[in-house]
Amino acid sequence: MFTAPEHQVAGHQARDGQLGPLVDGSGRFYKPFQNDERGTNELAFYTSFSSDTRIPSHIRVFFPVFHGTQLINASDGSGIHPHLVLDDLIDGLRLPSVIDLKIGARTWFPSAPDGYFRKCLAKDRESTSSLLGFRISGLQIRDDDIGFWRPSRLDVHHFQVKDVRYLLRRFVSSNAASDSELDCAFASAIYGGSEGVLAQLLDLKAWFEDQTLFHFYSVSVLIAYARDGSEDGQGPGRARVRLVDFAHVLEGNGVIDHNFLGGLCSLIKFVSEILNNPSENSNSNCVQKKDCKWSFL
Amino acid sequence: MFTAPEHQVAGHQARDGQLGPLVDGSGRFYKPFQNDERGTNELAFYTSFSSDTRIPSHIRVFFPVFHGTQLINASDGSGIHPHLVLDDLIDGLRLPSVIDLKIGARTWFPSAPDGYFRKCLAKDRESTSSLLGFRISGLQIRDDDIGFWRPSRLDVHHFQVKDVRYLLRRFVSSNAASDSELDCAFASAIYGGSEGVLAQLLDLKAWFEDQTLFHFYSVSVLIAYARDGSEDGQGPGRARVRLVDFAHVLEGNGVIDHNFLGGLCSLIKFVSEILNNPSENSNSNCVQKKDCKWSFL
Repeated sequence: MFTAPEHQVAGHQARDGQLGPLVDGSGRFYKPFQNDERGTNELAFYTSFSSDTRIPSHIRVFFPVFHGTQLINASDGSGIHPHLVLDDLIDGLRLPSVIDLKIGARTWFPSAPDGYFRKCLAKDRESTSSLLGFRISGLQIRDDDIGFWRPSRLDVHHFQVKDVRYLLRRFVSSNAASDSELDCAFASAIYGGSEGVLAQLLDLKAWFEDQTLFHFYSVSVLIAYARDGSEDGQGPGRARVRLVDFAHVLEGNGVIDHNFLGGLCSLIKFVSEILNNPSENSNSNCVQKKDCKWSFL
Repeated sequence: MFTAPEHQVAGHQARDGQLGPLVDGSGRFYKPFQNDERGTNELAFYTSFSSDTRIPSHIRVFFPVFHGTQLINASDGSGIHPHLVLDDLIDGLRLPSVIDLKIGARTWFPSAPDGYFRKCLAKDRESTSSLLGFRISGLQIRDDDIGFWRPSRLDVHHFQVKDVRYLLRRFVSSNAASDSELDCAFASAIYGGSEGVLAQLLDLKAWFEDQTLFHFYSVSVLIAYARDGSEDGQGPGRARVRLVDFAHVLEGNGVIDHNFLGGLCSLIKFVSEILNNPSENSNSNCVQKKDCKWSFL
């Protein structure tokens, strides 16, 4: 009945006898409860958030619905283990393209213990987080010829600014596997329009400009769509934009989450530029454009 | 002819035989050229910015006008020294209240040398920068009884979140020196209105959401106004909002300045809240509100 999610692109995976999340094929996602502060904290967040009447309904839709906890057999064969029961965000999407973007220039929270702080800081500087305000944690892109294109975990760790720029275009292109320029064929359908990714991100942004309830450290924006997901099967369906992974959410204490907001605005700018210039040859641009310092510094 | 600026609240000061900026009493501000990367970089920024036609005129007004360099006698008696000649941003304001807010959760730039990076990181964590996305670098508040209230440099270094919240209210209060609750008497005149601080900060914000030309590390927003600055002398004049200190500006390379933007949005939220709740007793709130972690973490 429980299987490893087929389209998970980041995080621990329930494969090869390891502990990871499971799905039940009926729209629910079972995340193993981590037996440390992270687990306690994520459970506390879901519990608090679920009953918080200050969250507007048009914002609540960005969060997985929480269905409590359940004891099920863990994927690593270690026996019965508590799991958080959530909506499976990919449920119902056939052959989806999925990208996981960890938002925030900084993944450590101000009061983080020293070891964790140092680990996060190093990752933020090595990855694109410090530079861009976000980094890609994983992705898969549907391709008619090769099935799915999915970079290795090592490749993902080495993504640079030019790769992020390229991959956000490739994510909405129909000819990703060919040698020709990316066509961004799905850009307007997926990123654009009144219900597209950009519009959804702008909704989130407006909330983040105002909300001082939560600070979302190390939280990802997950974007998923199916190429043939429209009702007539003739084009891509509406993209889903969701927030995931709440092991490091803190109370906002009356201050906005400027770290998440800044990164979100940066992502919004990237998506806007693709919509404004879908035919730009980003390949060559990337190579030409160095991520250099101000010339005189 | 040249004197130390009377109302400078942050940075090196030309007093007691030290090297610092001078003013000429005719509206110009002379900043000693720093004989290192900082000086070279600030000059490069002013030169580039002054001739950059991509800067809209409604944004250019936030920057001091640059009048080139000039050799004048340095304030420390060391003889002739090159100075950047800029507009004196306080010129014409009688007995001004001034606050210098260094914007950005992070004052180090991604490619910063290790020593500088560590120094900035420590300051960002010790001050309110990491938590709030900005910190107060200095301020003076006009007070009819005591002249000016100006905290010591050491006090400024120890400001916490509650102090920032309190001081942004005190900055627009007429009864700061008394023991009673802050009255925020000038909040609507200074922070509010179509030409007030909030409106000006929102103009800046809209530009920062889009501009990818520059990344402004360690740059301050300076806010200044005179209590009796209105044309009829019966109330405060229009507040000036300016950006200052460009020794650490980098090329944007097609990425928005999410670090500055996040901090700016945080400041905007503080100012908005004062406008929305001018009568709130922020003193007691500050004491009650701990800057604590999410309760379960």
